[in-house]
Amino acid sequence: MGEVILSIFGFGNVGRATAQVLLEKAGIFREKYGVNIKVVSISDTSGTVWLPEGIDLPEALLVKENFGKLSKWTNDYEVYNLSPREAVREIDADVVIDVTNDKNAWEWHRTALREGKGVVTSNKPPLAFHYEELIKEAEKRDLPYLFEATVMAGTPIVGLLRGNLRGDTIERIEAVLNATTTFILTEMERGMSFERALERAQKLGIAERDPSGDITGVDAGYKATILHCLAFRPITFNEAKVRGITEVTEGEIERAKARGKTVRLVARVEGGSVTVEPKEIPRDSPLAVESHENAAIIKTDLLGKLVISGAGAGLKETASGVIGDILKASLTLLKR
Amino acid sequence: MGEVILSIFGFGNVGRATAQVLLEKAGIFREKYGVNIKVVSISDTSGTVWLPEGIDLPEALLVKENFGKLSKWTNDYEVYNLSPREAVREIDADVVIDVTNDKNAWEWHRTALREGKGVVTSNKPPLAFHYEELIKEAEKRDLPYLFEATVMAGTPIVGLLRGNLRGDTIERIEAVLNATTTFILTEMERGMSFERALERAQKLGIAERDPSGDITGVDAGYKATILHCLAFRPITFNEAKVRGITEVTEGEIERAKARGKTVRLVARVEGGSVTVEPKEIPRDSPLAVESHENAAIIKTDLLGKLVISGAGAGLKETASGVIGDILKASLTLLKR
Repeated sequence: MGEVILSIFGFGNVGRATAQVLLEKAGIFREKYGVNIKVVSISDTSGTVWLPEGIDLPEALLVKENFGKLSKWTNDYEVYNLSPREAVREIDADVVIDVTNDKNAWEWHRTALREGKGVVTSNKPPLAFHYEELIKEAEKRDLPYLFEATVMAGTPIVGLLRGNLRGDTIERIEAVLNATTTFILTEMERGMSFERALERAQKLGIAERDPSGDITGVDAGYKATILHCLAFRPITFNEAKVRGITEVTEGEIERAKARGKTVRLVARVEGGSVTVEPKEIPRDSPLAVESHENAAIIKTDLLGKLVISGAGAGLKETASGVIGDILKASLTLLKR
Repeated sequence: MGEVILSIFGFGNVGRATAQVLLEKAGIFREKYGVNIKVVSISDTSGTVWLPEGIDLPEALLVKENFGKLSKWTNDYEVYNLSPREAVREIDADVVIDVTNDKNAWEWHRTALREGKGVVTSNKPPLAFHYEELIKEAEKRDLPYLFEATVMAGTPIVGLLRGNLRGDTIERIEAVLNATTTFILTEMERGMSFERALERAQKLGIAERDPSGDITGVDAGYKATILHCLAFRPITFNEAKVRGITEVTEGEIERAKARGKTVRLVARVEGGSVTVEPKEIPRDSPLAVESHENAAIIKTDLLGKLVISGAGAGLKETASGVIGDILKASLTLLKR
């Protein structure tokens, strides 16, 4: 049995879902992989709870649920006021987990790697803007830097591209990578206006209060950029051409429908080019996904067409990617 | 730049396609992965051509194409008469490639591992009958034992199950894993009899001269057994329940069609159970594949439904899996 020590950054929906799964499946992970996972710190925007002996996860979840902030947790635990960078430096851990939305997280990812810690992230901007630097930093130190949950939640497209198809030359990837826009476009197809569909998505918790990342195509653009880095070569989001769904009219949707087609926000990734835009697609295309499903068509020279589809959003679906990476990192580190 | 030495067993269609790709993409593999691949021996049923300095692949392909047998190659090369086991022992190589149909190959896979060599195989019976023993042997010695091409050709379902989804508990896999039966069933749907459809498949080179492995469901059964080993725990093909398509009547196909459904040979894999049988499936199911496509639906606790589909047969499509594994094995061995 090997012990792996985690430091978790972010205790929003995904962070809590991750903690919940770590808790529920701890016994399975011990038995199946011989890995005992200990969480020594959790940080949210209110502060950092840190206990080298290991944090009581049920209690952490309860505090967060009842008070909304970890800083309210005062009976047994010290709450520290540390920047992520300080926390990454000071807290002794094997793997740093980033389930925040911190746009500048790449800096403390780099710090973590330089401190000899592995990194698992569901946070996209570090990869979409600093892929090359972070991967090089990790490779130089032979540390795991894993990011399955950044694209298509836990659906393992990152793992698939990172560890497989090595003999193939990838020619193109076409993918639907954002579930909120699929929801809105589907509602519009049923006759709802863009504004009402967006409102409905927010009410159901599918779109965030600030939905701009989704509807402007930035979220899909980040993901498509990461796919480009994996399948071709490192680039940054600044090179991506992105048009969201805000200008899609009810008329366009109607006309597509009349032609037996449907509109989705489609990412197209080719060597040197990343494009995200609304497109008409045939109803029987693998990209004509519904609900929270994402899909990708990968074209290669040897294999031809490969399709992978599955959940692209959702809490336990995203936790699936984070936890899969935590276990992958753990097994790599324990093997040494 | 690291050099990796291969010993290839089998020089039929898949073996030649593999050699062809190794030849054509040698420069790409050197540049992209820093791996120089040298083939020091090739064996077919007529004998073993072995040259420690490396075999001239274009010439090997030419000899095989023109004379049908490697033993006809007499000008520069010595042709040896060795059993696979002897060849595996005597020939100095880093990785042994099995692209034969040898049902007893598990014995020389084991020999290869005991001799400290990695193994890459597209040959199914060793896995379908001796998975546990072979994997343990490889793990004990920390050697790559890779078999992507045994299931769904190069479509990376093996890699996906082996290295990803570690946090998920797999509940069930349903899959169409044999392309010949899909061809025959599709032709029958168009009004052809089973016998005529089979003849046509043989004429087109889709079915082998002895098609029993495909039509009795044994081929799909081997593959489903391997998926069970990956997703649940090691078992053998002897525990699989298999019914092929030989008893599917034109009437059954017609009735399915009338209900808007289609018949496919479907494998169902659950903890402790492997079943292969012809089943009616809805036309919009991911399993309603056409032509040489295979598909699998993987159900898990966290992620829900994951679908992967792509080529399940074909020469370069199978070579894709073999070559991907050769590179994976090479990178693992060179990292040491």
